[in-house]
Amino acid sequence: MLGLIGAGGAGLALGGVGGAFAGAQTVRGERAARAYDFHGEHQQGVTTLSPDALVLASLDMVDGATVDDLRELLADWTYAASRLAQGLEVAEDGAIGASPEAPPPDSGEALGLDAAGLTLTFGVGPTLFDDRFDLAERRPAALVDLPLFAGDLLEPARCGGDLVIQACAADSQVALHAVRNLLRIGFGRAQVRWLQTGFTHAEGSAERTMTPRNLLGFKDGSANLRVDDAAHLGEFVWVGDDADQPWMAGGTYLVARRIRMTVESWDRTRLREQERVIGRTKVEGAPLSGGEERDDVDLDATDDTGQPAMDADAHVRLAHPSVTGTRILRRPFNYVDGVTSVGQLDAGLVFLSFQRDPEQFVTIQRSLRTDLLNEYIRHVGSAVFAILPGVAEGESLGDRLLG
Amino acid sequence: MLGLIGAGGAGLALGGVGGAFAGAQTVRGERAARAYDFHGEHQQGVTTLSPDALVLASLDMVDGATVDDLRELLADWTYAASRLAQGLEVAEDGAIGASPEAPPPDSGEALGLDAAGLTLTFGVGPTLFDDRFDLAERRPAALVDLPLFAGDLLEPARCGGDLVIQACAADSQVALHAVRNLLRIGFGRAQVRWLQTGFTHAEGSAERTMTPRNLLGFKDGSANLRVDDAAHLGEFVWVGDDADQPWMAGGTYLVARRIRMTVESWDRTRLREQERVIGRTKVEGAPLSGGEERDDVDLDATDDTGQPAMDADAHVRLAHPSVTGTRILRRPFNYVDGVTSVGQLDAGLVFLSFQRDPEQFVTIQRSLRTDLLNEYIRHVGSAVFAILPGVAEGESLGDRLLG
Repeated sequence: MLGLIGAGGAGLALGGVGGAFAGAQTVRGERAARAYDFHGEHQQGVTTLSPDALVLASLDMVDGATVDDLRELLADWTYAASRLAQGLEVAEDGAIGASPEAPPPDSGEALGLDAAGLTLTFGVGPTLFDDRFDLAERRPAALVDLPLFAGDLLEPARCGGDLVIQACAADSQVALHAVRNLLRIGFGRAQVRWLQTGFTHAEGSAERTMTPRNLLGFKDGSANLRVDDAAHLGEFVWVGDDADQPWMAGGTYLVARRIRMTVESWDRTRLREQERVIGRTKVEGAPLSGGEERDDVDLDATDDTGQPAMDADAHVRLAHPSVTGTRILRRPFNYVDGVTSVGQLDAGLVFLSFQRDPEQFVTIQRSLRTDLLNEYIRHVGSAVFAILPGVAEGESLGDRLLG
Repeated sequence: MLGLIGAGGAGLALGGVGGAFAGAQTVRGERAARAYDFHGEHQQGVTTLSPDALVLASLDMVDGATVDDLRELLADWTYAASRLAQGLEVAEDGAIGASPEAPPPDSGEALGLDAAGLTLTFGVGPTLFDDRFDLAERRPAALVDLPLFAGDLLEPARCGGDLVIQACAADSQVALHAVRNLLRIGFGRAQVRWLQTGFTHAEGSAERTMTPRNLLGFKDGSANLRVDDAAHLGEFVWVGDDADQPWMAGGTYLVARRIRMTVESWDRTRLREQERVIGRTKVEGAPLSGGEERDDVDLDATDDTGQPAMDADAHVRLAHPSVTGTRILRRPFNYVDGVTSVGQLDAGLVFLSFQRDPEQFVTIQRSLRTDLLNEYIRHVGSAVFAILPGVAEGESLGDRLLG
């Protein structure tokens, strides 16, 4: 089902990419085959390849919560996440049915399901560093709210948050179960602010070598950073030891944007225009400047008539590293949330990108100001979070941040 | 991934249950392994086992549409569905990239994906038989709006509709792609009214022998009608040749309810109380009257103290056939749609049931008036549809209805 992260050889082969797989310490036997180890230098869910289902939750600390509440919450989450990632009950084995006079410590809907490649990724937002927890001096300079970009139509209820949990799995039920139980652990300390689901699926899922398509019907990510390119990840994604806040070494920054696509308008647009807007062919995903999907875009190429092969405002051109001067690791999902009040699908892209400084995203987003694609999309949700560094066994996610 | 509907033997074994699998007529080679044939006595998506992903769309015919528009729409949908079920482009092979000066006839996001066990199921609502299309005399007596039940908190935007499309697949991307393209085919004739997504996943997905769990964490469907029990399906699900409207022979009725669960309250409820409410144990799903999950409920059983083993208002008791006198084929999915305005998860059950008369559902729902579970759930969406009989090759879904 999640071919890449199988047992044995395939799992080992992944060790250098997204982390090692948990072994025999789980109690579920063969179900452990699809489990990532929660521990490591970096958190999972950044360079692990995108699985089919996303549940992304933003939370706010409740009124009156203290820094001790925050510390204990992060410790509780660390323990719970290390179990959930193995496909185990959130508290301890068998606890669901053990105490008739207490609420079950795990909500139960993942009982019997395997880990389904679950990754859980935790981060903190800029607001956590206001005057509530005496953390202002620990705020990384890079962790500030994103500017308002041209065309943004942000809905406050879909923006911001003190904390974030990203759950990705091959199975929606497993991803939601994890987030729900982590939210529940936060009860009385943190409260969910918004929750966003997403999905994706790529041809050849057994190898995950193909580029998934977004709801524009185009391949999305052909020129993305490769998760096995350690040099680029070090340059563009992971915060290094030279960070202004040493606690962020090994972390990264997440930018999350809910980008609505007016798919009905797009679907009535001619193929030639769709391809002009994107700068790639629809079926193959090849750059309009020629070559095949994975070939680099030639911004100076001309067509038979001597005209530029790619529109000056084509999406892939304005997003191209040679134009923006920077790169990010994108990890997009598609979403559909019913129908709008005017009878259109409320569907689009959950844009997630990881970068060592949110300014990389800002630079690219500013370059897209004249993007032809803007006619068909609306940014309606936005948030930025510092993704905490990974933890070793026995460490808590909050140890380095809270000292 | 969708173990039950594999190629070869497993697929053939399913022939008696949910219908036969498409063979070599698809162009996608091995990808055809997960394809159901759209044609048959009954539509797919009723007795086919629940796959992981649901997209359910309700539509209204647009103002001014004629019965000819309806006829053509159903014919267009028949053609499109027969292709989508095979994992093919909705129009014709290769059409997406063929005409630069036209909008691509398929939106493209399923290019390269296989059929993923896609089933498409079409139906018509009571409103289709009002005075717009001169169909009043063809309305089955059973096709009327459901009554308002005690405790219903229905939101009009989540209720009703002239037409319904149910898409189920192992893959959300495939299910959404199908519905989106069918909606698009309806442009100018029918307009989406509401759209509901859902998911489910059961232990042992390769065999689908285990009962999936709902977001209460309980197994849901242990005493459901079995999809391989032809006698019961004939008695309770499929409309027979004796129907008041002959065009409905081979069809069935779908009741769709969006049932919100206040999961935060549920999660703070003691295990003993949760089990009393449901009438089953949480971990095993065994009736409180004793025995194992699949054993029948003994409504007269007593515990060690001589008290009834099951509360008089336990959910499984009030829903039990010996109490209601009837049965339905349930096909539930879970849903999560973000966060409510008061910071709770908007999550619950997409209750789908199939029955030869919606009155079966009405009877059961009335029996549940004093259900202990009502404290934790709210019915917020409701619709009823006549599911059209299946079609043979060359037939259109509208042929029998429209004569």
